[in-house]
Amino acid sequence: MIVLDSLHSLFVHELKDLYSAEKQLVKALPKMERAATHESLKAAFREHLEETRTHVERLERICTELGISPEGEHCEAMEGLITEGEELINAPGDPDTRDAALISAAQRVEHYEIAAYGTARTFARLLDFHDAARLLDKTLDEESAADTKLTKIATGGIFAAGVNKAAQHS
Amino acid sequence: MIVLDSLHSLFVHELKDLYSAEKQLVKALPKMERAATHESLKAAFREHLEETRTHVERLERICTELGISPEGEHCEAMEGLITEGEELINAPGDPDTRDAALISAAQRVEHYEIAAYGTARTFARLLDFHDAARLLDKTLDEESAADTKLTKIATGGIFAAGVNKAAQHS
Repeated sequence: MIVLDSLHSLFVHELKDLYSAEKQLVKALPKMERAATHESLKAAFREHLEETRTHVERLERICTELGISPEGEHCEAMEGLITEGEELINAPGDPDTRDAALISAAQRVEHYEIAAYGTARTFARLLDFHDAARLLDKTLDEESAADTKLTKIATGGIFAAGVNKAAQHS
Repeated sequence: MIVLDSLHSLFVHELKDLYSAEKQLVKALPKMERAATHESLKAAFREHLEETRTHVERLERICTELGISPEGEHCEAMEGLITEGEELINAPGDPDTRDAALISAAQRVEHYEIAAYGTARTFARLLDFHDAARLLDKTLDEESAADTKLTKIATGGIFAAGVNKAAQHS
């Protein structure tokens, strides 16, 4: 049960929530990679899986230093985000449109994490957990970079034939 | 059932998903306002409720122009986000910490919507639905502004005693 009696207890809750979110994402990303068609998108999901494993380890390190367990919460929001992603993976259709849909789902996930890590980093700073704040900031940067990469793949900024365009012309 | 056979069908799916998300949010925001203690936060939730009603109307306008119904989808991600928010509303604790928790939950919601409207606006542009793109862009700006306002309330940028600080010192 969550007890909101101090910013410290809220911070611990947020860390556990993020840990659950990242663990769910580690399971979901390989499915998204398999469902994707464009090699650039497959590669983005593969690379983000490696990053996500590092994010899990960072949360474990932070929790060890705080003397708490990262377990004990289930992130309902990430479950909903992944359920939506799975609906898109399983929907009939053409590969280009599915890739556009997968990018859309993945960017929602990234934005959820950007919000969550932003808050957790702010709490860590206010509570003078400088090492934790530094690690959370590092992850926050990587989530933002992953979001930017997906936008580039989607709009064709770095690939001549963007995924969205391809879906439009299918 | 979702059929991903063109960018148009994906766009329609995204509009329906957003419509469900906004309708759920219209129900959730009054509960968040009642659970909040700081007047600045209560006011932010009240103002965002009015904006959210406008966002619902804009989606209805867009769907009318496209000749489709906005109904028919249930946004699982928003359901998860709201479930998390309700856990925080119902958790025992002190008012300052709860306000910090409510801001954290609300910023996750805003970021979800920022990602979703960003994608929908891009799809509208690619499909040459200029009026829809303009309306989606307007909502996107308002979601971003709501997120920025919450950050200001949280960090005390515009209020001498920020909510996070108050929670820290409770």
